Amino acid sequence: MRGLKLVSRDYQRENTVVKVGSAAVGSGQKMFMAGPCAVESLGQITGIAEQIKDYTHILRGGAYKPRTSPYSFQGLEEEGLGFLRDAGRAAGLPVVTEVVAPEDVDLVGSYADLLQIGARNMHNYPLLKRVGSQAKPVLLKRGFGATLEELLFSAEYILAFGNSQVILCERGIRTFNKHTSSTLDLGAVPVLQQLTHLPVIVDPSHGTGRWDLVQPLALAALAAGADGLMIEVHDQPEKALSDGPQALKPEKYKTLIKTARRLVQCLGGWEQ
Amino acid sequence: MRGLKLVSRDYQRENTVVKVGSAAVGSGQKMFMAGPCAVESLGQITGIAEQIKDYTHILRGGAYKPRTSPYSFQGLEEEGLGFLRDAGRAAGLPVVTEVVAPEDVDLVGSYADLLQIGARNMHNYPLLKRVGSQAKPVLLKRGFGATLEELLFSAEYILAFGNSQVILCERGIRTFNKHTSSTLDLGAVPVLQQLTHLPVIVDPSHGTGRWDLVQPLALAALAAGADGLMIEVHDQPEKALSDGPQALKPEKYKTLIKTARRLVQCLGGWEQ
Amino acid sequence: MRGLKLVSRDYQRENTVVKVGSAAVGSGQKMFMAGPCAVESLGQITGIAEQIKDYTHILRGGAYKPRTSPYSFQGLEEEGLGFLRDAGRAAGLPVVTEVVAPEDVDLVGSYADLLQIGARNMHNYPLLKRVGSQAKPVLLKRGFGATLEELLFSAEYILAFGNSQVILCERGIRTFNKHTSSTLDLGAVPVLQQLTHLPVIVDPSHGTGRWDLVQPLALAALAAGADGLMIEVHDQPEKALSDGPQALKPEKYKTLIKTARRLVQCLGGWEQ
Amino acid sequence: MRGLKLVSRDYQRENTVVKVGSAAVGSGQKMFMAGPCAVESLGQITGIAEQIKDYTHILRGGAYKPRTSPYSFQGLEEEGLGFLRDAGRAAGLPVVTEVVAPEDVDLVGSYADLLQIGARNMHNYPLLKRVGSQAKPVLLKRGFGATLEELLFSAEYILAFGNSQVILCERGIRTFNKHTSSTLDLGAVPVLQQLTHLPVIVDPSHGTGRWDLVQPLALAALAAGADGLMIEVHDQPEKALSDGPQALKPEKYKTLIKTARRLVQCLGGWEQ
Repeated sequence: MRGLKLVSRDYQRENTVVKVGSAAVGSGQKMFMAGPCAVESLGQITGIAEQIKDYTHILRGGAYKPRTSPYSFQGLEEEGLGFLRDAGRAAGLPVVTEVVAPEDVDLVGSYADLLQIGARNMHNYPLLKRVGSQAKPVLLKRGFGATLEELLFSAEYILAFGNSQVILCERGIRTFNKHTSSTLDLGAVPVLQQLTHLPVIVDPSHGTGRWDLVQPLALAALAAGADGLMIEVHDQPEKALSDGPQALKPEKYKTLIKTARRLVQCLGGWEQ
Repeated sequence: MRGLKLVSRDYQRENTVVKVGSAAVGSGQKMFMAGPCAVESLGQITGIAEQIKDYTHILRGGAYKPRTSPYSFQGLEEEGLGFLRDAGRAAGLPVVTEVVAPEDVDLVGSYADLLQIGARNMHNYPLLKRVGSQAKPVLLKRGFGATLEELLFSAEYILAFGNSQVILCERGIRTFNKHTSSTLDLGAVPVLQQLTHLPVIVDPSHGTGRWDLVQPLALAALAAGADGLMIEVHDQPEKALSDGPQALKPEKYKTLIKTARRLVQCLGGWEQ
Repeated sequence: MRGLKLVSRDYQRENTVVKVGSAAVGSGQKMFMAGPCAVESLGQITGIAEQIKDYTHILRGGAYKPRTSPYSFQGLEEEGLGFLRDAGRAAGLPVVTEVVAPEDVDLVGSYADLLQIGARNMHNYPLLKRVGSQAKPVLLKRGFGATLEELLFSAEYILAFGNSQVILCERGIRTFNKHTSSTLDLGAVPVLQQLTHLPVIVDPSHGTGRWDLVQPLALAALAAGADGLMIEVHDQPEKALSDGPQALKPEKYKTLIKTARRLVQCLGGWEQ
Repeated sequence: MRGLKLVSRDYQRENTVVKVGSAAVGSGQKMFMAGPCAVESLGQITGIAEQIKDYTHILRGGAYKPRTSPYSFQGLEEEGLGFLRDAGRAAGLPVVTEVVAPEDVDLVGSYADLLQIGARNMHNYPLLKRVGSQAKPVLLKRGFGATLEELLFSAEYILAFGNSQVILCERGIRTFNKHTSSTLDLGAVPVLQQLTHLPVIVDPSHGTGRWDLVQPLALAALAAGADGLMIEVHDQPEKALSDGPQALKPEKYKTLIKTARRLVQCLGGWEQ
């Protein structure tokens, strides 16, 4: 696209592989990121990590939560970062968590292996410049009102400021649909893979807002060629402090990953 | 949904299987419908049918084309219906074609095995009543501006007028996206399968408007649980009189179906 | 726009004025069309017409109703056409009503002064061809999922088949908004007036789905340069058989038109 | 709406009037904010201010520009703030400018009379908390992918942190429309005025992206009841460093404001 440089396939033909601790995103092997929307306690995050570790490459959990209402749970902040890091270490998994302000980047980076820029901050350029100016890899989610061109330009900010370790994430867009909170745009996966060398994953949890749609759309995302998935898992969704309705229980998540592995294996050699 | 009766899962638990000649849609076996957007000549449709018959359950081809411009090719009408029927017989395939006006229903029904109501006519109630009053099965495409509730109510019209042989088809909705002509809403597949007993297929050709995205989204649709696919195939897309840019060449289509069969086979026992 | 001919400003510089009985739409004087969504009885339509006749140029009322559900009131059909015509004559107003099928065009045309093609039928090309082949003027509503290019091409069908008396109507599009049933696109008014010589009116009733928003958006439409308004009026909205929530009571409608006249008068000489 | 408190009409019946230097937004008198998208030089901003001061209540100009591309002009930052303040003083106008990062709030607040939170930052909660914790009034623009509920909750953040001086601004939403960059949602004006006591203005420049549509939609916004307008004015749009295509030349702007005053005057006593 006109104006894009560093993120473009024309600039770099081979795929970028983003190393996140022991995980390599974009290497060909599908990567699964999972965990609760929000870190609620050490016991909660440790317990969930323990149950899903054999089916997961990167543990997710939010400590700084961008919430629509100022009266909703805003996250445990630094304490939550510590719980997440400890749960990851105990489970032997690298961790990803969201950063929402430039001044928090160093702090969050001292705990996390992968820094998430959420959909609401895709256009937050000072934040993009800041994560571009440090070394930790970045997971950039597409804004729910953003075009692919805007997503790629937001990634361009990060690369232009010096950090080439960026993973893109499709998580659904705003449409007139009423049956899901967002409409997951799986066409974005092959289109982004044509336009950029950066890995592309999909979040079917936020992409639907409904736990019962997570498996079919997770499998669809992999069939469309996604390099991985980010899925919300909670052991007690009904008691979750955030986004319970879209969280899978650990058992359902394991079934999904088993099925996903079968799909990936048999499609192994498929030409896109 | 409130007000829905005959199409609802609450009204009929078991899946409806729609018989189209030798094909059974909704039976569990995935059904592949393919052919050119428009029937252009006997040679064209017969040649394409010959090339794809071993990978196809139902042959498609338009004889009455709803075109945005009055100056675009409008289809061969009854002559085209004859070419399609003959090509189907030669290839041993049942045929599906679009009907756009109530007064054409009997004529089209005398040639076709499956009557298509296109996206632009999903809200055309006199047409829905008319196809509901005859015996040939109906393929009802979702309007690109329609909610799932509206799609189900349009199907309800057909069943309420006496025809229970209806297949639903997701073909993409209008969004702010610029990289595809429509945004394929694959979440619609599992949602519809929860709400109704009617089979649900997906059209990734109109759903993207780009031939290079048809395979990844066709596979995604099957992984999401679609009962089948409708795909545009043309031996000379660059010379097609309609929708060339989204048509696959026969070779590419065969590769897609081979891959699709592999996917379906290995996902055979997957629980949604 | 590429491919447009007869409807284009390049083809005809001066504005088309559409004569509807005593009314002239596009003449510079703003035209107000009003009445109930559906004709429910002779008494209902006659009573409403009597109350609003001094504030109205064209009386509206539906006899053939395209309803989402087959179980909703579908209109009084020919009986309703008679009631509407008689009410119009008694009030000295020409009448507009919707036609939904090609085979009904002659019948509806024998009662109505202006034939409405509803939003759901904007892409119904056999119907467009049919109204293009007869002499009564046509009110063409924009489909809620249609681009302006598609609206203009649908008008092109009517002109290409011989009828140049076409009025365009913006009535709202599908968006992610939750506060109104549609999002009224008032930018469409000046854009259409640049692209075509046909008159452009606005329907703030369907455009919002809320009676309490009709006045502000009706005034906004006139300020944006609309050639007229189509507004739903019902004497007992709470008992209306269709679209009650968006209908104004006659008193509210009169207040709106008084205000609208004031606005038009003082903006009389405004340059767009 | 559920969960809203301080911004709700139920919490405060009477309209909030936001004082910005000599201007009072929400007082009943319509307020006009105008100026270039970006401050480019002292001469540019001073010259524009001089030409429009008699038609303007608040001077706008961006010093920190959130741009889609990292390679686009990013604004003059603090130097631009000084130019804007000086131009405002020379013209006798208070000034509004955008702040994009929490750490810049105090600096920007030391130059500006009104702090703008742009559409891209409507969901930037740390920024909302920060402007809520200081005394300068805030202009909060609706995100182009945001519902009105989300806009009101973002305003709730500012009030909840202690700052009740907030102006809301509708600037267009993302839709499938191709004729404008955004679709201006004028229904949002009366709906917001029902739900909240905060003033509501409209930005037809970003709302359309086309200078030729600014006047009709500006007048429409006032007719819909907006408390004011924000309009981009540039003396050399073709040379503007940002958003030239949507900027009015000073002469066109003056004509618009003259017409707007006439409209407001004659609608003075209109009941919504």
